[in-house]
Amino acid sequence: MLTTQLNGIWPKIKEEAKKASMAEPGLASHYHCTVLKHENFTQSITYILAGLLASEDLPDMLVREVCEEAMAADAAIETSMLEDINASVERDAACDEYLTPLLHYKGYHALQAYRISHWLWQQGRKPLALFFQNRVSEIFDVDIHPAANIGHGIMIDHATGVVIGETTVIENDVSMLHSVTLGGSGCTSKKRHPTIGRGVMIGAGSKILGNVNVGEAAKVAAGSLVRKDVPSYSTVAGVPAKIVGKCRLQPAKTMDQQIPG
Amino acid sequence: MLTTQLNGIWPKIKEEAKKASMAEPGLASHYHCTVLKHENFTQSITYILAGLLASEDLPDMLVREVCEEAMAADAAIETSMLEDINASVERDAACDEYLTPLLHYKGYHALQAYRISHWLWQQGRKPLALFFQNRVSEIFDVDIHPAANIGHGIMIDHATGVVIGETTVIENDVSMLHSVTLGGSGCTSKKRHPTIGRGVMIGAGSKILGNVNVGEAAKVAAGSLVRKDVPSYSTVAGVPAKIVGKCRLQPAKTMDQQIPG
Amino acid sequence: MLTTQLNGIWPKIKEEAKKASMAEPGLASHYHCTVLKHENFTQSITYILAGLLASEDLPDMLVREVCEEAMAADAAIETSMLEDINASVERDAACDEYLTPLLHYKGYHALQAYRISHWLWQQGRKPLALFFQNRVSEIFDVDIHPAANIGHGIMIDHATGVVIGETTVIENDVSMLHSVTLGGSGCTSKKRHPTIGRGVMIGAGSKILGNVNVGEAAKVAAGSLVRKDVPSYSTVAGVPAKIVGKCRLQPAKTMDQQIPG
Amino acid sequence: MLTTQLNGIWPKIKEEAKKASMAEPGLASHYHCTVLKHENFTQSITYILAGLLASEDLPDMLVREVCEEAMAADAAIETSMLEDINASVERDAACDEYLTPLLHYKGYHALQAYRISHWLWQQGRKPLALFFQNRVSEIFDVDIHPAANIGHGIMIDHATGVVIGETTVIENDVSMLHSVTLGGSGCTSKKRHPTIGRGVMIGAGSKILGNVNVGEAAKVAAGSLVRKDVPSYSTVAGVPAKIVGKCRLQPAKTMDQQIPG
Amino acid sequence: MLTTQLNGIWPKIKEEAKKASMAEPGLASHYHCTVLKHENFTQSITYILAGLLASEDLPDMLVREVCEEAMAADAAIETSMLEDINASVERDAACDEYLTPLLHYKGYHALQAYRISHWLWQQGRKPLALFFQNRVSEIFDVDIHPAANIGHGIMIDHATGVVIGETTVIENDVSMLHSVTLGGSGCTSKKRHPTIGRGVMIGAGSKILGNVNVGEAAKVAAGSLVRKDVPSYSTVAGVPAKIVGKCRLQPAKTMDQQIPG
Amino acid sequence: MLTTQLNGIWPKIKEEAKKASMAEPGLASHYHCTVLKHENFTQSITYILAGLLASEDLPDMLVREVCEEAMAADAAIETSMLEDINASVERDAACDEYLTPLLHYKGYHALQAYRISHWLWQQGRKPLALFFQNRVSEIFDVDIHPAANIGHGIMIDHATGVVIGETTVIENDVSMLHSVTLGGSGCTSKKRHPTIGRGVMIGAGSKILGNVNVGEAAKVAAGSLVRKDVPSYSTVAGVPAKIVGKCRLQPAKTMDQQIPG
Repeated sequence: MLTTQLNGIWPKIKEEAKKASMAEPGLASHYHCTVLKHENFTQSITYILAGLLASEDLPDMLVREVCEEAMAADAAIETSMLEDINASVERDAACDEYLTPLLHYKGYHALQAYRISHWLWQQGRKPLALFFQNRVSEIFDVDIHPAANIGHGIMIDHATGVVIGETTVIENDVSMLHSVTLGGSGCTSKKRHPTIGRGVMIGAGSKILGNVNVGEAAKVAAGSLVRKDVPSYSTVAGVPAKIVGKCRLQPAKTMDQQIPG
Repeated sequence: MLTTQLNGIWPKIKEEAKKASMAEPGLASHYHCTVLKHENFTQSITYILAGLLASEDLPDMLVREVCEEAMAADAAIETSMLEDINASVERDAACDEYLTPLLHYKGYHALQAYRISHWLWQQGRKPLALFFQNRVSEIFDVDIHPAANIGHGIMIDHATGVVIGETTVIENDVSMLHSVTLGGSGCTSKKRHPTIGRGVMIGAGSKILGNVNVGEAAKVAAGSLVRKDVPSYSTVAGVPAKIVGKCRLQPAKTMDQQIPG
Repeated sequence: MLTTQLNGIWPKIKEEAKKASMAEPGLASHYHCTVLKHENFTQSITYILAGLLASEDLPDMLVREVCEEAMAADAAIETSMLEDINASVERDAACDEYLTPLLHYKGYHALQAYRISHWLWQQGRKPLALFFQNRVSEIFDVDIHPAANIGHGIMIDHATGVVIGETTVIENDVSMLHSVTLGGSGCTSKKRHPTIGRGVMIGAGSKILGNVNVGEAAKVAAGSLVRKDVPSYSTVAGVPAKIVGKCRLQPAKTMDQQIPG
Repeated sequence: MLTTQLNGIWPKIKEEAKKASMAEPGLASHYHCTVLKHENFTQSITYILAGLLASEDLPDMLVREVCEEAMAADAAIETSMLEDINASVERDAACDEYLTPLLHYKGYHALQAYRISHWLWQQGRKPLALFFQNRVSEIFDVDIHPAANIGHGIMIDHATGVVIGETTVIENDVSMLHSVTLGGSGCTSKKRHPTIGRGVMIGAGSKILGNVNVGEAAKVAAGSLVRKDVPSYSTVAGVPAKIVGKCRLQPAKTMDQQIPG
Repeated sequence: MLTTQLNGIWPKIKEEAKKASMAEPGLASHYHCTVLKHENFTQSITYILAGLLASEDLPDMLVREVCEEAMAADAAIETSMLEDINASVERDAACDEYLTPLLHYKGYHALQAYRISHWLWQQGRKPLALFFQNRVSEIFDVDIHPAANIGHGIMIDHATGVVIGETTVIENDVSMLHSVTLGGSGCTSKKRHPTIGRGVMIGAGSKILGNVNVGEAAKVAAGSLVRKDVPSYSTVAGVPAKIVGKCRLQPAKTMDQQIPG
Repeated sequence: MLTTQLNGIWPKIKEEAKKASMAEPGLASHYHCTVLKHENFTQSITYILAGLLASEDLPDMLVREVCEEAMAADAAIETSMLEDINASVERDAACDEYLTPLLHYKGYHALQAYRISHWLWQQGRKPLALFFQNRVSEIFDVDIHPAANIGHGIMIDHATGVVIGETTVIENDVSMLHSVTLGGSGCTSKKRHPTIGRGVMIGAGSKILGNVNVGEAAKVAAGSLVRKDVPSYSTVAGVPAKIVGKCRLQPAKTMDQQIPG
């Protein structure tokens, strides 16, 4: 996205929160604390993540400071977080507000928690990174290893059951649905998880296992099992998955689940 | 069910709770607060749902009032809630008490929370309906859009990972297992999710995608991927699903997971 | 494992906790309370399980006493709990510390909670056993019936969506991934769930339904649907699953997800 | 008060809450849940008391039902609760809104909790009455025995440390400040606590001990120790207290702490 | 007390809890968890204290282990705890059950928490002793320095506002009421707080300041200010306190608040 | 204090926390989160106050932002907070660490919460100021009206029951003990509470009522009732209080509770 577009998201979120706050006064303080009180997106998202990830073992104010530290150290985190919101609004027909993923979508929350734990992992703070990973797995049912490399503009729709392993690479603008596995094979410590190209769409329940490559703008139909490379701009389906057609547009954006035949 | 049968459920629940309360005194207050104290089913279920759905952002007493409001406005909600309890007792071999789904089954809880959020959606209270939907998705791992239309006598067994999209229609007396997806295709806002006929049984992990019709008393075997209409009284299986046989009885009631061949 | 090996696990856990405690002081009390304070493994695991399973309806100190009671009555529980930790360290490439499953893995937590609820079930304390089962299903998204029979040296990796039914039998040294179903068929109360042999590996999302037998050291590839017996030392795959090759080593230990062809 | 005046309090509370809600949006949901959502005073006060008195041992929804039960059974409770609010507004110079005692004053909260526990005591529900008494003593530092008899139009200002014993009688329109003791003498079970007449004002820290009578419209100056009857319309002061002057007006209403000399 | 009398207290507590549990089922689990489940008094009181003293900074299970450690190391703690219960039953006319102080009286709870923190202080664990002292001051409004020396058979009635300083000594069988101060004078670290003899009764709000001695079986009337030694078997009253009479019996046991004249 | 002295307090607090953290590992994270993690005193005190004042109606992260806002707007708040810590260390013989009042003393916490609510009151944010006042009264049993004017170097020892009214003025370097009342007389809205001069010491339980002036370095003995002006450098005592001697040094600093005669 253009910077001006990204910059436009936060004002829209505030506007939507204001409207919602007036429509449902029982939630007014919720909108106030999570969005309306804040001057910028970073204040808002760190507040939200802290509230979600805190536990008896790790107080929310401490979580928030960790999130602030990460976002101050790496400006790309904020950009990615905004791109991810935009992805849901553009691609999820049931999502017509920027506020919705920010406040409600557990796929969005899990992904942003990963962005913090990934930064922790890079700093060598492995115990806290693992703590976050497993806390997210417990509360959102999404298990993303902090060492994975994930781009921006990512949508994880519905999200329950998604697993993304340690050596996975995901390029920008990928969409995936719930119950997708990007899993390893074997128990060595080398690269043993997939690489997912730009604009790929992965249907619900699909499993892509081992160090395979899914090319740019490919579509993996729901319920597929992929253990071999998938060419760019192709559609694969089945258990095991076979090529069943081509993709012209980025399937991550159209979210068309149909396959030929 | 006949009204007299429905009316018989609440007294049985109280009797079962009384027995359990004496058997396990550490849970006695739990049974007292959720069941024994109450004069009718509505008091009990609103108490239970409030305890489950409440969060720091939405106190339980407020949730309870919303549930009471919905159930007072639409008497069919209570009937459906009782029919759903009955469905588990009749169809789930591991469930031999009416008390068990009411207190313990997250599929049951998620479905009844949907019934409240559906009523909110109909009243135009979209922010609160979305709040409930996403709270349920977070705690029960069941994502039912408040706009979906779902009948009664429904069993969602085990429930983790179930996704039911915005324009889905589900007739009465349907059974489904965990990890079932009734998903959309594309990102338009028209009807893009399935319609499931009366008495259908959908096996674990099956995905039914797009605006397809699954006819009355059909069976979708576990792990299937359905993208085309399924005729009534037929059994389909596979990725993609094909017709593999017929069903004589409502498979939702027998819960027979076997398929021919 | 040899007793001496088992006995070596607890000292290693303490050592790892000490190191982690110094590396991340915000979690120091967490490591202290869960591990460092305790003189033996039983004190530690009962503390951890109590913290996880407690709810407003069942205080942590009560849960802990139940866990202590079970472990004092049946010494095999502790052995199994240690064997299960060892299984993760040996087989999960992302797990290089004994501390990690103990503190963080929800598959591990769900399995140990089952061990307690299984003991309760054997004592005829059905209400509390069901309470634990469904609490575990709600928080860890793993649904294990307390009546199931499960050996030791078990790894349930990632774990979200796993369902293990009432009459299931699982031998020692089995590995399974998330979203695996060991499900029933029909609604009678006889044995209607699978028996899984020693050393079997079950890939992500596989469903094994009905009273079928999966023989020793067999491999069920990810995404399979199994409704018939699987011979020992064979690999099956597909929907429905077919034999696609042989296994020489216990696949549960190598965790190789590849299949021939 | 006249019924019309009493009836005017609830609308004023709602108006004040609305204004406060707009002034401080971080508290908007607080005002909504406690006041604005409700159609009448009973709904509001039961919500507030339930939130305050609930504990891990007694859930708020159960407390609320007890409060509702008491207020439905005895209409005088609601009248007294309104008279008590009015007392603070009329007599406490720092209190210019009806909303303030309802939401914030612990003397008010403790007194209304007593009204519920007194009703429980009358019903023979001694364990729950004692539970409430001691919960109130713990959180509000005001210890009122449920068997005491207390009229309406009572103000307990600041409130910390107030003790009102089992056989105490307090007539209408009494004001007292913090740290006042209406205590017993000896350990028999007969009437061993004071009787306080209409319109009496008892200054901070005063102790009135034993079965003594404080006559109508008397003033007990701060820090006094009273062990003998006090005539109506007189002022007493000192340790032990002596008559130091007369009172023309009800001192409970003027709250004048000065004494002659 | 005789050992046989002390030994009789625990069975009576259980009997009373059983009766209360049947009378008020909403509190049944409360009675079960605090009393009925336990085999001996130590299990019960450590459970109760842990529940009261726990906070977000110090989990209840950790508090309980500290309490167990102290009581195992020093058997006199349990004896004192039972003597203190007995003191309330014998001397407080409003207390006719052994269960009541154990479950409800904050004076009792504060005193027993002191017994634990005193043991910690003796072990040199000053930070945790201070943590407990100040936690007790916050929740029970009773501030007892862990270094004070306090005997058994102590009743602190109503309790709010009691302060007992660092170098205070209290002999056995003392009764005091709320708002009593046993305070220091000056800011040196030598003995600067009172010594209270056996069987002394100190009335509500009395302040005894500095290193003074209150002799055996003396009575300090309510609201007194004592800054000089008080002879045994005498009654003092006033600000400052003067001798006003004699005491024949231990006033701590009769609880007679009257003074001559 | 000199700025260099004030600046030395924070490093000492960190040092003390580090030592305590090693001595009591169960509290290590408590020390880490409240002190060790922070770079400056403001970060630490806002963290601590937020944790204490937060409730279900007002999340800790919101409270913290309000505290940060106040301290950023008015630098004198931080200075006062440090002076108050120093006051306890210098004057309270039981307090030999700077860490102790910061973490544990409820008199200190109540006073600092007042400093925030006073700033809110000055900004016209009356609802939130009242919310804080009454929250503090509930949890710390100290009732300070946000409109009162209070200097720095203040110690409120033990603190339970202290009441400081709306038009009170307190100069710097004042010490007071628990149960002190600086109360109003009458119910007009003009200045109706006391003015307390620099270096005054007010003993436990003393009540100073009405618009009276207590001169510099005066001493009000414990249990006094003051309703008339007190000259500077004098000692008053009794009910009502009379001049009983002179003070040469600031009694607030020596904390000598003795009075002549």
